Amino acid sequence: MPYVPVPDDQPGIRGLLAFKPTSGVAVARLIHQLLRGDSPLSAADRERIAAHVSQLNDCEFCARSHAAAIDHLDPNPPVPTQGSERTNARLRALLNLAEAVASGGHYVTDELIGAARAAGANDEAIHDTVLIAGAFCMLNRYVDGLGAVTPKSDAIYDAMGAQMAATGYLGAVPTGS
Amino acid sequence: MPYVPVPDDQPGIRGLLAFKPTSGVAVARLIHQLLRGDSPLSAADRERIAAHVSQLNDCEFCARSHAAAIDHLDPNPPVPTQGSERTNARLRALLNLAEAVASGGHYVTDELIGAARAAGANDEAIHDTVLIAGAFCMLNRYVDGLGAVTPKSDAIYDAMGAQMAATGYLGAVPTGS
Repeated sequence: MPYVPVPDDQPGIRGLLAFKPTSGVAVARLIHQLLRGDSPLSAADRERIAAHVSQLNDCEFCARSHAAAIDHLDPNPPVPTQGSERTNARLRALLNLAEAVASGGHYVTDELIGAARAAGANDEAIHDTVLIAGAFCMLNRYVDGLGAVTPKSDAIYDAMGAQMAATGYLGAVPTGS
Repeated sequence: MPYVPVPDDQPGIRGLLAFKPTSGVAVARLIHQLLRGDSPLSAADRERIAAHVSQLNDCEFCARSHAAAIDHLDPNPPVPTQGSERTNARLRALLNLAEAVASGGHYVTDELIGAARAAGANDEAIHDTVLIAGAFCMLNRYVDGLGAVTPKSDAIYDAMGAQMAATGYLGAVPTGS
């Protein structure tokens, strides 16, 4: 049971955002900007960073819901080509960078940044990766630190993932209207 | 030197927010809501949670700037009374809770939450503490993960702390106008 009262029909972070809509709206807007706003990284790749960090932080709700969003954003990954291999190398380097950020800011090294640049990441891709990885260090702690409801059914995560892929995060806070 | 280009006159997180104002504004609004928005906790006590978590995460820029903000928000802590002792007990319990959150969401226990309640913290105070502690796990990683400029001079932190105490965080992103 969560440590603060949440609506029965709002699992995970959604219940927490609903508990206090003033902070909930600010959190939802930040998530939406980071995962759907302007970026050289695709929405699916940003969700991959989010899901990976959430798994490292052992946050089942965030890891499973963002994994489901990836399935809906990118249901048929393209057949590998020279271009897509370079994209995959960049993503792998950025996931390594995100992993260091999850351990702590001081774990980021010149080598990790250099490897990301060599794989094609520009300044903005590096910036976005570090900020997204940091944001999930916040969100994972918010969800598990307040004991948010963590559904077990795959169907619930699939439905959330479909909605996250279709509309993003601005609607994550019930307005009460 | 930071891993992304930042304005020469913007140290720490300010340079990073200026590098990408679209995410910068969303980050600044969240910080302002958490540290200056509606809460049962005073702005000074919320800054104490921010500074404590930043110190645990070894983020010199955030720890020193938020410590300076406390000095300006609460320059003359009141002489202890029965009421202020209870407030201090609540703050101590919430700092313990924040410390667990800094380690990870799963480190929060029923005992830590129970101790905070016994010391007078209500649902919203517990919620705000967990979210602020989580937010500084993001911000500390953002600052150090991108190698943000960390000034050494006390005078620079004192000037930032005075501004943070007077106007908060909404002005942290240069608008270019």
